[in-house]
Amino acid sequence: MELRILGCHSATPKPGEYPTSQALLVKNRWLVIDAGEAMQIQLRRYGVKFSRIGHIFISHLHGDHVYGLFGFLSTLRLLNRQTDMHLYGPLPLKELLDTVFRHTQVELTFPLHFHPVTGNEFKRIADDSQFEVFAFPLKHRIETHGFLIREKPAPRKLNMDAISKYPEIGIWAYHNLKAGKDFVTEDGRIIPNEELTLPPPRPRSYAYCSDTAYYPAIVPYIEGADVLYHEATFSEADRELAEMTLHSTARQAAEIARMANVGKLIIGHFSSRYKDPSVLLREAREVFPDTELAYEGKILIF
Amino acid sequence: MELRILGCHSATPKPGEYPTSQALLVKNRWLVIDAGEAMQIQLRRYGVKFSRIGHIFISHLHGDHVYGLFGFLSTLRLLNRQTDMHLYGPLPLKELLDTVFRHTQVELTFPLHFHPVTGNEFKRIADDSQFEVFAFPLKHRIETHGFLIREKPAPRKLNMDAISKYPEIGIWAYHNLKAGKDFVTEDGRIIPNEELTLPPPRPRSYAYCSDTAYYPAIVPYIEGADVLYHEATFSEADRELAEMTLHSTARQAAEIARMANVGKLIIGHFSSRYKDPSVLLREAREVFPDTELAYEGKILIF
Repeated sequence: MELRILGCHSATPKPGEYPTSQALLVKNRWLVIDAGEAMQIQLRRYGVKFSRIGHIFISHLHGDHVYGLFGFLSTLRLLNRQTDMHLYGPLPLKELLDTVFRHTQVELTFPLHFHPVTGNEFKRIADDSQFEVFAFPLKHRIETHGFLIREKPAPRKLNMDAISKYPEIGIWAYHNLKAGKDFVTEDGRIIPNEELTLPPPRPRSYAYCSDTAYYPAIVPYIEGADVLYHEATFSEADRELAEMTLHSTARQAAEIARMANVGKLIIGHFSSRYKDPSVLLREAREVFPDTELAYEGKILIF
Repeated sequence: MELRILGCHSATPKPGEYPTSQALLVKNRWLVIDAGEAMQIQLRRYGVKFSRIGHIFISHLHGDHVYGLFGFLSTLRLLNRQTDMHLYGPLPLKELLDTVFRHTQVELTFPLHFHPVTGNEFKRIADDSQFEVFAFPLKHRIETHGFLIREKPAPRKLNMDAISKYPEIGIWAYHNLKAGKDFVTEDGRIIPNEELTLPPPRPRSYAYCSDTAYYPAIVPYIEGADVLYHEATFSEADRELAEMTLHSTARQAAEIARMANVGKLIIGHFSSRYKDPSVLLREAREVFPDTELAYEGKILIF
């Protein structure tokens, strides 16, 4: 997987800062997570081809996570896109888009499939041949969902050294071997799959939690994710503000990462009150050392 | 007046390009004209203080002129703005804003006065102590208005050399002199105002025409403007495209500037098909030599 941070600041950006938006490469597909204003400009800047984006996930309907959607979809129309686009987000997003496009005369040239994300349980919302995506509730001032994106397991790898010992195994048999099946010789002898193949690389997973107050209920959903992006709008010094606005402190984000035993934590959605977000980084690392700061243009390959 | 170009490209921007938005300083007030996506980010980048903006003018409801409005107004709320904001634009803009703000839970902290811009005649839509703004119809695929912003005449300047010859003219009389009134001595003698004051600087004016097809009907409205911004989406080589989409070529923009006898022409709203817009500049300058290209960050003081 490859994550590109397009914007990672909260809603009152300073010069050079952008509201929340990310692109995630899963095998050969780009997924977009949240669509802060100027997302299309940031996608261009950081080299994500529009034509390779087929799925957009919107966590919640605050403007700093969704106002970039209108311009992006309008541009796809101007580029005469024909291929399907899948959009996942809160139920009212459909009416919002319809109204904006009606008033601004946007008629899409491509099928836009809207999948409402609702409910309070952990559930699968997308099932692609390359990945699956699960949604789960976060705790914010408005209905908000986090997302877990998980690669589908790759096929097993052929162990050519082992296979070459059996001249009766032809290329025609490889497909079944990759799928994990044993090989059966003409005389009915079984050669176990484990002898002929190697396990595939472990499927990667990415968890996205923004915006949310400290909410340990999500820990089981994101347990063991390779990378967790968790909002850290405030520092502990402003904890009261965090509680009032249902955002997290950097320490709280790190607590979640520690409890969920993730591989790495990325914090973002910084309030503009912090001139230098390294104060948030230090705070988080005290609890969870493998923490990094999000910044516009950051690329993480995992 | 001072013009800052925040964005000047059409709706499918390349990296580093932004859709249409401008800020115009008239005496000590900032006016915003059109609100392409990321306008708030560009305002920050080019140093326009949000608190000094009190008037926003929207030419038409295509996304590349209006999608930046939602984020900007939302941010003003987060900054707890209390002072009035005046918004001028097509009638459906009100419903558009209401719907977006309802779904994204934006409750403004300041009075937003919406002034619908409608009709086919040249008419005054704003009358401030420092400036007045007139709207007039353009020719586009959707209802679109151009704007003429004109400074209010400044008071006449005191001619202190002349005044000092009349000891009976005290400071108490200056206000009336600046307003153009004659001075009347105690014995009823009249000293004409022209003898005691100098004419004020000529009021400046700025005309904004985007988006529009070639439309000479606007010439009388913008006659003699100090600066005209006119869209030039295409070059003459793509004139058919311009006609089909109701946009202008660079040459057509220059024709309008020449007929209206403006001081200077700025062209913008370039289609992304032109890697180097200097082809548009050369084309316009053949007809109207005092033409300049718009670019993000351009500042013009006039």
